[in-house]
Amino acid sequence: MKFSLLPKEEKFFELFILQAKNVRDGVEALNGLVDNYTDVEQKYRKIEHIEHTGDNITHDIFTKLRDTFITPFEREDIHELASGLDDVLDCIEGVASRLHYFSIQSPTPELKQLVVIIHEAVQQIYEAILRLKSLEHAHTFCEKINTLENQADVICQTAIAALFEKARDVEQVKELIKLKEIYSRLETASDRCEDVANVIESIIVKST
Amino acid sequence: MKFSLLPKEEKFFELFILQAKNVRDGVEALNGLVDNYTDVEQKYRKIEHIEHTGDNITHDIFTKLRDTFITPFEREDIHELASGLDDVLDCIEGVASRLHYFSIQSPTPELKQLVVIIHEAVQQIYEAILRLKSLEHAHTFCEKINTLENQADVICQTAIAALFEKARDVEQVKELIKLKEIYSRLETASDRCEDVANVIESIIVKST
Amino acid sequence: MKFSLLPKEEKFFELFILQAKNVRDGVEALNGLVDNYTDVEQKYRKIEHIEHTGDNITHDIFTKLRDTFITPFEREDIHELASGLDDVLDCIEGVASRLHYFSIQSPTPELKQLVVIIHEAVQQIYEAILRLKSLEHAHTFCEKINTLENQADVICQTAIAALFEKARDVEQVKELIKLKEIYSRLETASDRCEDVANVIESIIVKST
Repeated sequence: MKFSLLPKEEKFFELFILQAKNVRDGVEALNGLVDNYTDVEQKYRKIEHIEHTGDNITHDIFTKLRDTFITPFEREDIHELASGLDDVLDCIEGVASRLHYFSIQSPTPELKQLVVIIHEAVQQIYEAILRLKSLEHAHTFCEKINTLENQADVICQTAIAALFEKARDVEQVKELIKLKEIYSRLETASDRCEDVANVIESIIVKST
Repeated sequence: MKFSLLPKEEKFFELFILQAKNVRDGVEALNGLVDNYTDVEQKYRKIEHIEHTGDNITHDIFTKLRDTFITPFEREDIHELASGLDDVLDCIEGVASRLHYFSIQSPTPELKQLVVIIHEAVQQIYEAILRLKSLEHAHTFCEKINTLENQADVICQTAIAALFEKARDVEQVKELIKLKEIYSRLETASDRCEDVANVIESIIVKST
Repeated sequence: MKFSLLPKEEKFFELFILQAKNVRDGVEALNGLVDNYTDVEQKYRKIEHIEHTGDNITHDIFTKLRDTFITPFEREDIHELASGLDDVLDCIEGVASRLHYFSIQSPTPELKQLVVIIHEAVQQIYEAILRLKSLEHAHTFCEKINTLENQADVICQTAIAALFEKARDVEQVKELIKLKEIYSRLETASDRCEDVANVIESIIVKST
């Protein structure tokens, strides 16, 4: 096995910051799409491209993990943090992909609200990862993400209930099926943000 | 590999028994709801509360795991057992949540049957966890859970097929979408019970 | 870290080859079913049987893993490879099960295309696993699986979009719900093939 000591481990922090920035790019692009709902395919392709970039960064982190004997925090945590960030970005891409393929004509208010919540959660994650190396106090960080996740949950459930109430004909049932899937995927994105927050909390607790 | 059980580690057994009891409270409350289908929101809120209690116990187990150097059984098994119990309870809460949010008017016979199966599987798990410390013989335990999982699978698939057969208009298609999701979640609950049973079996095999 | 391969460990390679062959049997049976769509229940039961055989092989691999102190490659990779193959077979069985329970009258062209893709991906995996022991060069292997996964993704999304376009009445919406679930499961099968390919790549990289 190949291993090299300290200086090279800095690379992990760099890669995680790179990925957190990339996930943020993804959710910002999704926010841009639902906020100004034109050129849907083109904007979706951009998000798809960001997701591919994310796959490459995840791959780099796993390769680095294989080649490094002493890691700055536990191997399992590195693995979970990388997978978690990858999952968040997958959900974001999945939402954009469905807006395009399902030919959604205009984003609903609930969809916009859910995207804003994911945006905020990802921003929190980005800032926590920036401070991961210095282990600065991140006391309220997990609480904030948890609050956002609960908000996403209620909005999602209420919005889906309203879709069922409203649907009266075949076209509306089809719209219900499409939007239900998109809302659920945004709810899953917020769950994955919470998973990421829990890993970060765990890393901080173990290191201090 | 066997370790002598130091007093400090007793806490793991206590926490797992606490969680198994809590999951059982959850499925009993769900059973109570579908058996006497009144005050749906209020009964759902109680199950939601049990699920939050479960989150806290899971968190306590993970914290304890971080702080303990020598554990009574393998770290990975503790992690999987805690996650598995958490997943079972999540499914139970998800079913109650959908009964409420989807405004299901009355529980179907199949729904009641599936809840009874999960109830029985959780009871089996509870009793196995009670005996985890003494490593008493649990020979038929996994078989029983496996049989229950197969029953749940057949009931779920047959019930969903019947929903498709029956749906003739938009209202019935909406009901189909709702119940299909609820049945599937109960089927997932039985899968997660089986996962928990497998971890318990693995712990027993390794310890004897 | 490299270990010399003791005779006892040969068993892992044998079990993985057995499982890869079994997964290939499963996808070949599914291909046979959609290609000659008669006796659906009987052909489904055969695939169900293959899936049960797969469960037993997975169980044998996990038992062997518990009893073996020095493994031919990392324990975690053995665990992930076994779980990944199991997941692929579960998806294949899930598709056959739904063709039967949903009373699908005839397979669509897109369904056939997706099964052909999974068939090819599983064949690639089988050949890679045959060569796992000798660590022969498998350079283009992951790329091929990745290309297949991308193809499956586009076919699935396009086919689901077309289902939404086409559905005009309640019967067609029901068909849409059924086929959407079947296509998605085939897409998941191709994702799981990619996961398996990634584990195999990782094993090869670490061992050379």
